[in-house]
Amino acid sequence: MMTGAEVLLRTLVAHGVELCFANPGTSEMHFVAALDRVPAMRGVLCLFEGVCSGAADGYARMTGKPAATLLHLGPGLANGLANFHNARKARTPIVSLIGEHSTRHLAYDAPLTADIAAFASTVSAEVFRLASAEAMGPTAARVVSAARRYPGSIAHLIIPADFSWSPGGPIGEPVPPAPPPAPVVPPLGGAGKWGLLLGGQTTGERGLALAARLAAAGWRVLIDRNAARMTMGRGGFQPERIAYFPGPAQAQLAGLTDLVLLEAKAPVSFFGYPDEASYLAPEGCRVHELATPGQDGLAALAALAEPLPPASWDEPPALPVPPPGPLTLEALGQAIAALLPPEAILSDEMVSSGPPVLAALRHARRFDYLPVTGGSIGQGLPVAVGAAMACPGRKVVALEGDGSALYTPQAWWTMARERLDVVTVIFANRRYQILDVEMRRTGANGFGERAGAMVDIGTPPLDFVRIAEGLGVPAVRVETVEGFVEHFARCLRERGPSVIEALL
Amino acid sequence: MMTGAEVLLRTLVAHGVELCFANPGTSEMHFVAALDRVPAMRGVLCLFEGVCSGAADGYARMTGKPAATLLHLGPGLANGLANFHNARKARTPIVSLIGEHSTRHLAYDAPLTADIAAFASTVSAEVFRLASAEAMGPTAARVVSAARRYPGSIAHLIIPADFSWSPGGPIGEPVPPAPPPAPVVPPLGGAGKWGLLLGGQTTGERGLALAARLAAAGWRVLIDRNAARMTMGRGGFQPERIAYFPGPAQAQLAGLTDLVLLEAKAPVSFFGYPDEASYLAPEGCRVHELATPGQDGLAALAALAEPLPPASWDEPPALPVPPPGPLTLEALGQAIAALLPPEAILSDEMVSSGPPVLAALRHARRFDYLPVTGGSIGQGLPVAVGAAMACPGRKVVALEGDGSALYTPQAWWTMARERLDVVTVIFANRRYQILDVEMRRTGANGFGERAGAMVDIGTPPLDFVRIAEGLGVPAVRVETVEGFVEHFARCLRERGPSVIEALL
Repeated sequence: MMTGAEVLLRTLVAHGVELCFANPGTSEMHFVAALDRVPAMRGVLCLFEGVCSGAADGYARMTGKPAATLLHLGPGLANGLANFHNARKARTPIVSLIGEHSTRHLAYDAPLTADIAAFASTVSAEVFRLASAEAMGPTAARVVSAARRYPGSIAHLIIPADFSWSPGGPIGEPVPPAPPPAPVVPPLGGAGKWGLLLGGQTTGERGLALAARLAAAGWRVLIDRNAARMTMGRGGFQPERIAYFPGPAQAQLAGLTDLVLLEAKAPVSFFGYPDEASYLAPEGCRVHELATPGQDGLAALAALAEPLPPASWDEPPALPVPPPGPLTLEALGQAIAALLPPEAILSDEMVSSGPPVLAALRHARRFDYLPVTGGSIGQGLPVAVGAAMACPGRKVVALEGDGSALYTPQAWWTMARERLDVVTVIFANRRYQILDVEMRRTGANGFGERAGAMVDIGTPPLDFVRIAEGLGVPAVRVETVEGFVEHFARCLRERGPSVIEALL
Repeated sequence: MMTGAEVLLRTLVAHGVELCFANPGTSEMHFVAALDRVPAMRGVLCLFEGVCSGAADGYARMTGKPAATLLHLGPGLANGLANFHNARKARTPIVSLIGEHSTRHLAYDAPLTADIAAFASTVSAEVFRLASAEAMGPTAARVVSAARRYPGSIAHLIIPADFSWSPGGPIGEPVPPAPPPAPVVPPLGGAGKWGLLLGGQTTGERGLALAARLAAAGWRVLIDRNAARMTMGRGGFQPERIAYFPGPAQAQLAGLTDLVLLEAKAPVSFFGYPDEASYLAPEGCRVHELATPGQDGLAALAALAEPLPPASWDEPPALPVPPPGPLTLEALGQAIAALLPPEAILSDEMVSSGPPVLAALRHARRFDYLPVTGGSIGQGLPVAVGAAMACPGRKVVALEGDGSALYTPQAWWTMARERLDVVTVIFANRRYQILDVEMRRTGANGFGERAGAMVDIGTPPLDFVRIAEGLGVPAVRVETVEGFVEHFARCLRERGPSVIEALL
């Protein structure tokens, strides 16, 4: 006799879901027990649910296929929601399994009882509730299919505990998701100034090479700032990403008469400000949604660009390691760009420290870049966990603001436990520094003493060396360029997790 | 000209809301700026939103009045939801302020855009959305009133950023919440075996003294396991709490013909199990809901008990400090019970380590006890933050499982920053040990190697000394009874935060 939980695991494995980031509780014990009987499913324990959801996001961004998460009732799911929000904006496929009280127990409003579907629906319309133990296999198959419908979404399955411990019926037959519809590509280009905005699956190597042909033909090519994954660095075409603040973004778009969207939305600013635009395309610019996020943008791009000849582009030079001196963001960026090994994966949650570092990274060896897609910080370290699980042969570098790193530091423990090859660099400016900038933009006229305390995370100072070591990851603090270069090079050379706190 | 944000702060202060646990972002900058102009509102920065919501819960449990929380859009609120869930089950009043994009910006589905009301409604039906800057004062007044409606609830106010930065209209007039209705008390008692279950406001000193009279008259008095706050220890009547597992709880209730509820629900087990009851009262037992959670249970109890004479009870003896030896839960409990100073406040998130320690604590000096009300771990340290802010002259002791402590360790930083007088004791058994027990109960037949790994949090071992020190709190590890006694006594003597990792 197979329990429902075992049927669930076997169905997931049959559909290619072979990894589960878990923070289980009582209602998930039969799922955990079934791990002993289904060795093809790998369970990865995380000490906080936001690590699970963020890791599943990072894994799917790198593999294109969903991992599962296993969370404990409504409050466990709640702790995963912020990173599910980021995954939703990234259009990442995830199979989210949530244990529920046994059906008989639900009538009694026990302490952990809550409306799980209400929690789940905040980040996805795909919420399934298992109706019986016998239905486990077919329902799980539909859940995986829903998660994988192009471009990908979070599909939740709420599983009452008794359906996990009862006999479970047949394993679910695979339900292959429909391929994305190929968009109709009308003749575009010609008179006027044409722009192309790349998103979704068009920001990888193939899409960029195709887009380079359009750039050579006079198109202005830009990348959706919030695309889930982009290929960057020397050795390929590197269009600019849409800038964070409205003014610079408007300058990037100025003069366009036509903007073609590929799996991207017309660009809007991150926040609204009293005297600045939210919608960033110039007045009168015609917007052509050539491929929606649910359509095959790469096919559309190919139809548009393949008639044009292959293109070359100006290649930025490699940078030398910077000279000794005090730490600056520019020097840190140059050092990372100079030392980054081939095929690295970068998870970026630098926030205010980002611009100078990202400018330098145009000079690095080709790498995959994973930004924060939904604006909710606390995803950088979990996404690095998932990317490292997805690509065991590649070096993962997590670039973190000190404020950002403190939302989900538990990710370090999973890195240590799974011996993941991730170097974390903390940009320790000891402030929520982005808010210094935002404060001025919103017209709030700077900080007095009491307001300023609300962005001061340096009183008392955070000691990331101890925090990381406490969670099982070796760590070092550096205060000079030469110190950073020495330790960053060493961490890249060695395998396994490490943390460098760069004190700015 | 007062901004909407300043009107909000002044309205809150006028209604007695003088403390705000904040993790702000761009959309909350005008609220932060207004702190400079409204010194009566104290802002307390937390590095993770679950610390804010848990701290507001602890503050209100100790003061009876709401604090505010200030969170950043949907994902910021999401990170606070698990502890809001606990606060909802505790029936705690909280004024939850959530910044939203400016109204004009909302049309554009920016990265951080999400359905904030959907997130908020998972933990409360009281969700207000500000309609204009001019309405800030009156709306905020209604929000505070909703939070304070007996027995208390989480009232959310969603505040579009432009309503914070625009001129804000009048300060809101106080809207006093209606007092709780006094229940009608029919004649109760007499033939049969009567039981009394205390919850809500009846579990403090006055309620217990009244309940003692009924106990002396032959009633069986018990306490709702999930009541928000209880007075415990020597020097007052100490009824048993309803036990965690069904069997022992059924034994506590066995033989009752009638059970009278005061601001409590008929007892149910925490989880449902294959072969055990969810509903715990014996078959045929009549249940009398004398006071619902929304009624004045203390008035009902007084009507019931005041005709009876004052009662005495068997007082447990004070315990000596335990002799030197290896650490056991029994010895730790005895040491804590022996050393606990007068009027201490205990935040309990010991989970599996709890029973022997709580048994010993019946012998401690009288203290206030704050349990996990909604079953979502990660509240113990934040609740201790709030309790310490509420009661600056009293010692707070947070008793934490090692697994539990890792959900919201960021609370330690706020303890360090605000110099809060909190001693944390970590019961480090290096497992999610409660799941060993639960696994057997759910019939899942114990753990093999792969399943067992999902409850093993000791590979690699967590070093709580480094984690706490990294967050600014001095810490020590002990492995013997004499080591614990020495350091616990020292931490109680000194003021300010400290952590003791007790390695079991």
